[in-house]
Amino acid sequence: MTGLFVTFEGPEGAGKSTQLARLVERLSAQGTAHTVTREPGGTPLGTRVRDVLLDPALTIDPLPEFLLYSASRAQLVANVIRPALDRGDVVVCDRYADSSRAYQGAGRGLDGALLDHITAAATGGLTPDLTVLLDLDPEVGLERAARRGQPDRLERADLAFHRRVRQGFLHLAQRDPDRFVVLDATLGPDELEARVWSALQDRVAASA
Amino acid sequence: MTGLFVTFEGPEGAGKSTQLARLVERLSAQGTAHTVTREPGGTPLGTRVRDVLLDPALTIDPLPEFLLYSASRAQLVANVIRPALDRGDVVVCDRYADSSRAYQGAGRGLDGALLDHITAAATGGLTPDLTVLLDLDPEVGLERAARRGQPDRLERADLAFHRRVRQGFLHLAQRDPDRFVVLDATLGPDELEARVWSALQDRVAASA
Repeated sequence: MTGLFVTFEGPEGAGKSTQLARLVERLSAQGTAHTVTREPGGTPLGTRVRDVLLDPALTIDPLPEFLLYSASRAQLVANVIRPALDRGDVVVCDRYADSSRAYQGAGRGLDGALLDHITAAATGGLTPDLTVLLDLDPEVGLERAARRGQPDRLERADLAFHRRVRQGFLHLAQRDPDRFVVLDATLGPDELEARVWSALQDRVAASA
Repeated sequence: MTGLFVTFEGPEGAGKSTQLARLVERLSAQGTAHTVTREPGGTPLGTRVRDVLLDPALTIDPLPEFLLYSASRAQLVANVIRPALDRGDVVVCDRYADSSRAYQGAGRGLDGALLDHITAAATGGLTPDLTVLLDLDPEVGLERAARRGQPDRLERADLAFHRRVRQGFLHLAQRDPDRFVVLDATLGPDELEARVWSALQDRVAASA
């Protein structure tokens, strides 16, 4: 029995949390065993690392930033994601390695080969079966995020950075079209929910 | 103008802090510009990461442990060590990358090539000019550390682990005899102080 690993990616303000919650509701409603988690976080270590990463008072260079995300990810894969997949769960994760490639790679300019090498070690090569990318123009996303209150360290970075991140995500999706489903995040939440569910059904059918 | 990068390595209880403080006193007494720092720590980020690493309540696997040390190290090299060396300081650091090779490599069994690759990225290839290894039988070291109070997460690991760490340090010293000075930590503090100072003089003379 092996489960299905689903990740949500995209910028702040794209509606990841809403769509993730709706997917989880549907899984619950049909009685599918599932595990919900997020990055950074998901373990006691990850929660501590998350607090450090999102602290606006700290200076964190791109490489240490990536290493902190990778530390959280390695512990999460070992303690939460792998065990859940092994017992056959659908695992739904809010962000995963693609966020590092987009934010620290495309956004901050870290070398892609270095990121891939460390990510392969941290995840033991575990790649999602399905990645839902909620694509959004950075200006719209930042405006949405700002409405939710004080922006965190990531949200305050400049617009050019967020444009590179968006292109990074889109590039990853182009490189791996079998894994990614790219959705226009300006669609209504019901429409998005239906498309995410449809993508999941396709993936389950393909792996059956 | 380039400074001199000196690191102290060895197990808990070997007297690193005492010898480091005595070296710093001597440097101060002769008016040599110097910077004193430590790992993990030495920057606001490093201090936060140190608190996480030394928390006995957290489960931290070997790879995330190493990634956290590397994150602290990368920030320390960029913000503290490189700038100090660039202005000509003698930089004295309590632990550096050799500790990762000994503890997470030899001790916890992480792959050496992976450690070296990530360390090279985190440090930008910066290697100490002089590494003082205070070598000590693990049983003696643990007894000394226990006398100082509640053992932290690292200190509570088992004796076989600490024996592998000691062999790891000695192996590194054998591989790089020009950089390492190995001292018997059971010598008296005055004798050790004299030998550390003599090793530093030799290194300054060799680089002049």
